[in-house]
Amino acid sequence: MKLATLPDGTLDGRLHLVSRDLTRAAPAQAAQTMQTALENWTGLESALTAEYAALNQRGGTPFYPSSAMAPLPRAWQWLDGSAFESHGDLMDTVFGLAKKEKTGRPLMYQGLSNLFYGPADDVRMPSEADGIDFEGEYGVITDAVPFGADTATAGAHIRLIVQINDWSLRKLAPIEMKTGFGWVQAKPACSMAPVAVTPDELGESWRDARVDLPLLVDWNEKRFGAANGYEMAFGFDQLVAHAAYSRALVAGTVLGSGTVSNKTYREVGSSCIAERRGIEMIDQGEAKTPFMSFGDRVRMDVTGKDGQSVFGAIDQKIVKA
Amino acid sequence: MKLATLPDGTLDGRLHLVSRDLTRAAPAQAAQTMQTALENWTGLESALTAEYAALNQRGGTPFYPSSAMAPLPRAWQWLDGSAFESHGDLMDTVFGLAKKEKTGRPLMYQGLSNLFYGPADDVRMPSEADGIDFEGEYGVITDAVPFGADTATAGAHIRLIVQINDWSLRKLAPIEMKTGFGWVQAKPACSMAPVAVTPDELGESWRDARVDLPLLVDWNEKRFGAANGYEMAFGFDQLVAHAAYSRALVAGTVLGSGTVSNKTYREVGSSCIAERRGIEMIDQGEAKTPFMSFGDRVRMDVTGKDGQSVFGAIDQKIVKA
Repeated sequence: MKLATLPDGTLDGRLHLVSRDLTRAAPAQAAQTMQTALENWTGLESALTAEYAALNQRGGTPFYPSSAMAPLPRAWQWLDGSAFESHGDLMDTVFGLAKKEKTGRPLMYQGLSNLFYGPADDVRMPSEADGIDFEGEYGVITDAVPFGADTATAGAHIRLIVQINDWSLRKLAPIEMKTGFGWVQAKPACSMAPVAVTPDELGESWRDARVDLPLLVDWNEKRFGAANGYEMAFGFDQLVAHAAYSRALVAGTVLGSGTVSNKTYREVGSSCIAERRGIEMIDQGEAKTPFMSFGDRVRMDVTGKDGQSVFGAIDQKIVKA
Repeated sequence: MKLATLPDGTLDGRLHLVSRDLTRAAPAQAAQTMQTALENWTGLESALTAEYAALNQRGGTPFYPSSAMAPLPRAWQWLDGSAFESHGDLMDTVFGLAKKEKTGRPLMYQGLSNLFYGPADDVRMPSEADGIDFEGEYGVITDAVPFGADTATAGAHIRLIVQINDWSLRKLAPIEMKTGFGWVQAKPACSMAPVAVTPDELGESWRDARVDLPLLVDWNEKRFGAANGYEMAFGFDQLVAHAAYSRALVAGTVLGSGTVSNKTYREVGSSCIAERRGIEMIDQGEAKTPFMSFGDRVRMDVTGKDGQSVFGAIDQKIVKA
C-alpha cells in the first residue's frame, strides 16, 4: 500500500491512497488523516488495502508528488538513529571527536516532530555560516508500541516506511554534542518524501527490517551519493525496541535510520556533505567541499527493483529564514 | 489566571479555570482544551481572564488537584534546559564526566512530549537497577514563537508557568551522554503539577523570567529539598530564544529549567537524588543515598508568598512497568 497526504488547509492534511506507479491518488475513505489511520491501524488496514487495490485497477485523479505534504505532516515523536557505522566513523573525524566506542547500543536522539516539510517546500535556515547540510535517510512509522516491547513485537508495529532528509547545521552540531545533551539548534525540521509505503510494498527490498535499496542524492542536479540502506548495524525493529525500553511509543512515532552510508563510500558517494568532507580530510588532509548556500537544491529519490520511484522525490531549495 | 485540565475520556482532557486558592474549578467556555487555548492565546486571553475573575468571585465546583491531568497532557514539543549551574557541576561529578566548560550557551535537550503524567498518576519504570530518580523543576509553556525570535520576543510568548518532575534513569544517563546524542532511554515521560499559572499570577515571584520561589521536594514523606528557582544562569526568555534559533516553536511548546538547584545545596537540599549523591561523593568520598525503589513516593509543591500552594502538588508512586 502507498499513502500520501495532500493539502486541505489543515495542519494534518488529507490522507490519500496513491497508485503503485505514483500517477494517481484517491482520498482514503477509511481514515481522514495519516495520524488517525495510525491510531487504529489494525482496524483500518484491510479497508485501506481494499481501497488501494481498487485504485490500482482504475480511478483516482492525477497525483503530483511535488504537491504533497509529508505523509505525516506532524508527529508526536521523532526519534532518529545513527545506524550506519561508516557514517558515524566519518562524522567523528569531521567533528574532531574521539571515535566512539562500539557499545552494542544504538545511537539515537529525539528531534523536532511538530513539522515535517513536504517534498517541495522551501527549507528555511538562519545562516549559511552554520554549515547547512542534508542527511538522506530511511525511516519507519509505527502505530502504538507497548512499553518495553521486544524486537519481534517492535518489528510487528512498523507500519510504514518513509524517506527523510534530516537537515543539519554542522557548525553547531559538535558544540551541542560536547554537552552530552544532543542537538536542538543543530537539527531544524526534517523533510519527508511524498509517499509512505507498507513493508510488503518493498517486496524483497525490505530485508531484515532494513531497506535494501540505494538512496539517490543529487546536490544542485549533480549526483552526490547512492548508498544502500541495508548496511545498518541495527534493524529498524531493534531501533524501535531500543526506543520502547522506558516508554510506550505513541501511534505515529517516526524513527529514522540515520544518514545512509556504506563502507564503500569512495565508490557509492555519500548522503550528506559532512561525510564527503570527512573523506577529503582523510584522503587529502583537509575538507574541500563547502556546505550549502541559500538557493541550493537537494533531490533525493529511491528507485525500486521495478525501475519506478518508490517514495517519490524530495526536491527542495534552501532559503534564508 | 490559573488553569487545569480535568479528565473527560480524551487524551487532551477538558480545560478548566481554577480559583486562586485551588478550591474550585469551572470548565473554560472560551476553549475546550489547553492546546486550543494556546493556539489562539491572544484571541482568547481576555475571555479566559474574565471567566477566571468570575470564578474567583463565586461559582464553580470543588477542585481536587489530585484528580487533574497534567495541565497540558500531551505537547508537540518538550525542550528541557539545565540552567542551574550548581546542578550541572554536581552531575558531572556523579557521572564521572569532565566538568563542562562554560560556553555561554544554554544546555538543552528535546524529550518525550506525547505524554505528561498527571500529578497523582502512578509512574511506570522498567527496573530499579536503572537508578530511578526525580528531578524537580519549573517550566513554561509558550504559544507560537516565531523562527529566530530574540529574547524580548521570546519572553512575550511565555504564557504559562508550570512545575515539572523530569523522571530520570541515572545508570543510563551517562552512557547516553557519552554518545553526544542526548537521552532517550534515560528520560521517560515527565509529570506536571495540576495547575498552570500565568506569569502575572506569580506577582513579584516572577522575576527576570525566573520563578523566585522554593520548590519543596519530599521523598517518602521526608523533606529532601527546598531550592529556589531564581538561580538560573539563563532566564526562561533566553531559553525560549535559544530554542527558536533554527525553528519556529509550535504553540504548546513546554520548556523546562532543568533541576532546580542552589549553590547553597548543603543548606537547602536538592531536587533530585543524584545531586545528593554528588555532595556525598565530595564530602564523604562515596555516594550513600540509594536511588528509588518501586513503591516509593515523591511529592513536589510550591508555596507562594501568600502561603498557598501555587501549582498544587505532584504526589506520585513508582511502579514496575
